[in-house]
Amino acid sequence: MSARFSIIETAAWFKERDNFLVLTHRRPDGDTLGSAGALAQGLREIGKRVFLLHNPETTPRNEKFVSDYWVSGDFVPDHIVAVDTASVGLFPQNALCYKDDVSLCVDHHVSNTGYAKLLCCYPDYASCGEIIYEILTQMSGDVSVQSALRLYVAISTDTGCFVYGNTTANALKTAALLIERGAPHKELNKLLFRTKTRGRIAIEGMLYNNIEFHFDGKVAITVITRDMMKTSGAVEDDVDDISGIPTSIEGVDVGITIRELSSATDCKISVRSSGSFDASRLCIHFGGGGHRSAAGASIAKTIEEIKAELLKVLGGADGLPGSP
Amino acid sequence: MSARFSIIETAAWFKERDNFLVLTHRRPDGDTLGSAGALAQGLREIGKRVFLLHNPETTPRNEKFVSDYWVSGDFVPDHIVAVDTASVGLFPQNALCYKDDVSLCVDHHVSNTGYAKLLCCYPDYASCGEIIYEILTQMSGDVSVQSALRLYVAISTDTGCFVYGNTTANALKTAALLIERGAPHKELNKLLFRTKTRGRIAIEGMLYNNIEFHFDGKVAITVITRDMMKTSGAVEDDVDDISGIPTSIEGVDVGITIRELSSATDCKISVRSSGSFDASRLCIHFGGGGHRSAAGASIAKTIEEIKAELLKVLGGADGLPGSP
Repeated sequence: MSARFSIIETAAWFKERDNFLVLTHRRPDGDTLGSAGALAQGLREIGKRVFLLHNPETTPRNEKFVSDYWVSGDFVPDHIVAVDTASVGLFPQNALCYKDDVSLCVDHHVSNTGYAKLLCCYPDYASCGEIIYEILTQMSGDVSVQSALRLYVAISTDTGCFVYGNTTANALKTAALLIERGAPHKELNKLLFRTKTRGRIAIEGMLYNNIEFHFDGKVAITVITRDMMKTSGAVEDDVDDISGIPTSIEGVDVGITIRELSSATDCKISVRSSGSFDASRLCIHFGGGGHRSAAGASIAKTIEEIKAELLKVLGGADGLPGSP
Repeated sequence: MSARFSIIETAAWFKERDNFLVLTHRRPDGDTLGSAGALAQGLREIGKRVFLLHNPETTPRNEKFVSDYWVSGDFVPDHIVAVDTASVGLFPQNALCYKDDVSLCVDHHVSNTGYAKLLCCYPDYASCGEIIYEILTQMSGDVSVQSALRLYVAISTDTGCFVYGNTTANALKTAALLIERGAPHKELNKLLFRTKTRGRIAIEGMLYNNIEFHFDGKVAITVITRDMMKTSGAVEDDVDDISGIPTSIEGVDVGITIRELSSATDCKISVRSSGSFDASRLCIHFGGGGHRSAAGASIAKTIEEIKAELLKVLGGADGLPGSP
């Protein structure tokens, strides 16, 4: 189990050491990459040697925020640092060799397993970027425009540009300070939140046109077939957060997306609940699991078979939308 | 022409007077309604009599933020105050009788025509709500949770929840202070930014599926026919900001939405430019006008005729996307 470290202790720890390798998590998002990039930038500015372990799943859009820091072959680190990574199960393949040697983890997930020797974790923060901001200002009294840019990426992406339920006053305040420090928020907002690929537009259009409403509009079911993926030209990135769409419709409490994967009988369902309905309960019926508000399951049946079974289960069980 | 008033002078002006009627602008948005509601609430809290003139175009979604303050029949105001309203041309029909009698206007539009006797206008603010926040804190040292809620509505809607290009550090900072004061930002974000009507979903789906790309994908053209409006069940509210969609697509510099109105030859075009292309120049060709980044025109031709003419003009003129 990790020893707990405060922001002040963490800043002092970095100042007293050198030669850091920073790890990010699998399927890297703006928070893990922005936090890692800002930390590397800030440490270099006070003369430290620091690199990020190359994360092979970095999307082209995010590459520019971290490419200056990817490690090259001959660097031998003295200290391994992980950011925004709650467990070694979230390590990319090429980071697994470090799983027992992580000196420090900076994180905001309450579920952090304590795999690092030292843990600087503040679960009340909406993003890891806010914690990195405090470490850097504690360390140097300020953040550079390069760090500010990357921290803005971290905080804004983890809060969906300040619209998700995890958004806090601190996230907004820190973003304001980063803008004052020179983070180009207009350009970043346009790039990160106001641009859709043609594939995304096409698949969203198809999805919008095949939504089925049941139980007085309280349940919405959408499907993504292999054919839709092919016709739209959408790639995996384009459907990443698409299962949130059904519950964004007025009056919908339970949103279900059925996705066809490698064949007609290789499907997964994603269930989202915006109210009291327990999404995990429905998914457990299908051999899956998850949380009350978001759950999923893999099912070896066709879309039509799954839809019929979903409606039967939803209409029958106690406490589900169709029951009295 | 108005005399200019600072925030401090405006706060003092309110404190020394009583019996205010507050006007909001035509097609009222969250900023005008939230600002007016917060101002009325804050003035009532220091013992003033204040009402809002009923704005008949208030949408059901926004009604709850202002319904406590609508004027009833017998109130005779001593002072008329307009908020977020740049000119008398933006007055609702029932406010026109006050057009020469506005004592004070609080606004953030650089284009304010100076129709009020006194003008408290700060064009660097992203929203009128931020100015009202400063007036209320100047007046009372604080804002109540009821005012904070309405000011959050004002600031967040005018910045698209902090994502539009007008977002500033001050907008984010003020929102953070309002959240600390008790504004229920999670519920408000869900209501204002994360909920789509069924009509909106349906019309967006249709629109996504009929986008035409021209000039190497730099120009995107979408149409909204009367038939689409009927089939989707969309109402006017649902298509309010829809002409921003084409320019949100990767690679698109010029987005054009052709909307069929009362008949097949009663159309309007909305042109948006995200780069150097001058949208107003294209619309002037069709007898319309506007700004460099957003312009429009009414055209007595069919959608197909308009589309053909648009492509001809875009392909021919200097500096337009199709030209060398």
